Amino acid sequence: MIIDCHGHYTTEPQKLHDWRKSQIAGIKDASQKPSRAALKISDDELRASVEGAQLKLQRERGTNLTIFSPRASGMAHHIGDAGISLEWSQISNELIHRMCGLFTKNFIGVCQLPQSPGVDPKTCVGELERCVKEFGFVGANLNPDPSGGTWNSPPMTDKWWYPLYEKMVELDVPAMIHVSASCNPAFHTTGAHYINGDTTAFMQLIQGDLFRDFPTLRFIIPHGGGAVPYHWGRYRGLAQDMKRPPLEEHLLRNVYFDTCVYHLPGIELLTKVIPADNILFASEMVGAVKGIDPRTGHHYDDTKRYIDQVSSLSAADKKKIFEDNAKKVYPRLKGKI
Amino acid sequence: MIIDCHGHYTTEPQKLHDWRKSQIAGIKDASQKPSRAALKISDDELRASVEGAQLKLQRERGTNLTIFSPRASGMAHHIGDAGISLEWSQISNELIHRMCGLFTKNFIGVCQLPQSPGVDPKTCVGELERCVKEFGFVGANLNPDPSGGTWNSPPMTDKWWYPLYEKMVELDVPAMIHVSASCNPAFHTTGAHYINGDTTAFMQLIQGDLFRDFPTLRFIIPHGGGAVPYHWGRYRGLAQDMKRPPLEEHLLRNVYFDTCVYHLPGIELLTKVIPADNILFASEMVGAVKGIDPRTGHHYDDTKRYIDQVSSLSAADKKKIFEDNAKKVYPRLKGKI
Repeated sequence: MIIDCHGHYTTEPQKLHDWRKSQIAGIKDASQKPSRAALKISDDELRASVEGAQLKLQRERGTNLTIFSPRASGMAHHIGDAGISLEWSQISNELIHRMCGLFTKNFIGVCQLPQSPGVDPKTCVGELERCVKEFGFVGANLNPDPSGGTWNSPPMTDKWWYPLYEKMVELDVPAMIHVSASCNPAFHTTGAHYINGDTTAFMQLIQGDLFRDFPTLRFIIPHGGGAVPYHWGRYRGLAQDMKRPPLEEHLLRNVYFDTCVYHLPGIELLTKVIPADNILFASEMVGAVKGIDPRTGHHYDDTKRYIDQVSSLSAADKKKIFEDNAKKVYPRLKGKI
Repeated sequence: MIIDCHGHYTTEPQKLHDWRKSQIAGIKDASQKPSRAALKISDDELRASVEGAQLKLQRERGTNLTIFSPRASGMAHHIGDAGISLEWSQISNELIHRMCGLFTKNFIGVCQLPQSPGVDPKTCVGELERCVKEFGFVGANLNPDPSGGTWNSPPMTDKWWYPLYEKMVELDVPAMIHVSASCNPAFHTTGAHYINGDTTAFMQLIQGDLFRDFPTLRFIIPHGGGAVPYHWGRYRGLAQDMKRPPLEEHLLRNVYFDTCVYHLPGIELLTKVIPADNILFASEMVGAVKGIDPRTGHHYDDTKRYIDQVSSLSAADKKKIFEDNAKKVYPRLKGKI
């Protein structure tokens, strides 16, 4: 079985985009604020939106189950206030829930959190609990920078985040640390902000002692861990200079990397440097890079092909990456597969 | 000959730190403002500050010449106004000039620019010209985020930066794109902000058309290019999706990566993915990571050892990386070696 731990619903019906547009217009002009009931998307429309996309790619690439969440760049926690974010998150999560109901073998849900810049993360606990307990979701996406590129939240090791971590531990669900759209012209969303978010979060974890307080808390760092595996020597050395424990001991019982790295040499490095126990298969399809690599004739984001080609990985290690680690990191998958 | 294109004066005498401390105190309390003449550092003090550090490491590691600039994190362009930045830059550059005079075979200078948040980069032209024409410096460090972690400057492809680029082209000097200290608690300076700066700048260059306007402008992206080579497939794919030219054509006539990657697998990836014509040897010693890797018994930042071990690189490619590319990218080295 091949579990892709990182897929977003990036092929939403136009109606959803239109509703969001009205919601945003309603922030300034209350007369444009749409009702929730105004959003009417039929099951057939939901089916059609993934049939020629995620489902087709699963079949073509030979993957089975995608851990599925709302479009990451669409979360846009920086837009409006906490109320706007909550309404938008609930609508987005409910669509994922419906999709998982329509395709029980293909998708399992992960939720968007109703974060908002400067707002206490404990306001996210209710929606997380609803998604896990009522919808059967297995995790959450956690945005370390709800401002969308200003980076004015406390580091992820700060006690400010603890109420959310307490609920994650109680529910036994992990979070993927994933920023959303950048509203800072310096940062291209998928080319800079996403990767910087991954790198930044990992370094924050080195500096802190979060897992002493939460020994069972688990994070997935997407996009192959940002710059981290490429600079593994730098991070080992920085940790050492800072008198932190070795990274294996300090972080690798709690931190995992996905395989959203879109070329073979990158996957080779990832699997050489990071223990197989800490790598989860992912492609982020349909995601940041949609094209076909003219050098290979295959989609850049067909990451399964790269892993298949890494001859230094044993069959047991590949099984860990493709399946076992996901079951370990997302224990709520157990009853659902 | 082995040229290290990335070395900072990180072993400055305490007197320099004290002077800077007074300068900063003087921003709020004019009575504490020090005179330039109050900074008295003798040649012997300068010699002593590098003898057991940069010079010793050059000898031990078998490198010859370091392209030497003021401490990157010390630039701190976010502190004070443009006047403070200019005074501090001039003092810092003058020390580098003296050091290069004392050790003509070991050091060649690169300048700190007197940038200041929100201030027109053309205010940096005078100091750049002074350092190149009067001091014989061969390049500059250019900070894409003088705010120190707020990232509120226009992207590097914006015409805002053009007056500086025009002078760089006229003088035929490259710039290393290098942020300074982070004053944003989200970003660890050397573990997040530096690497993010590299990644961010490269993505800005993909988005723009800077080298159409400046075909001979040259940038070095330090720290092995941040996350870029590890995610080379992502960047190729993003460029393709955005209908940009292939990266080789769009950027690699003007953009170079250094080798400040502190483990063998990282250097292997860098040299596999990026053409040897675009890689410049560097170690950033004495820099971000000072320790010895217990797995190898050698300093993490002894990057020459890693390159020596890459068997897939031909002798000609290694010569490019160690020497020829530096002479190409920094043409003003020519008369000085």
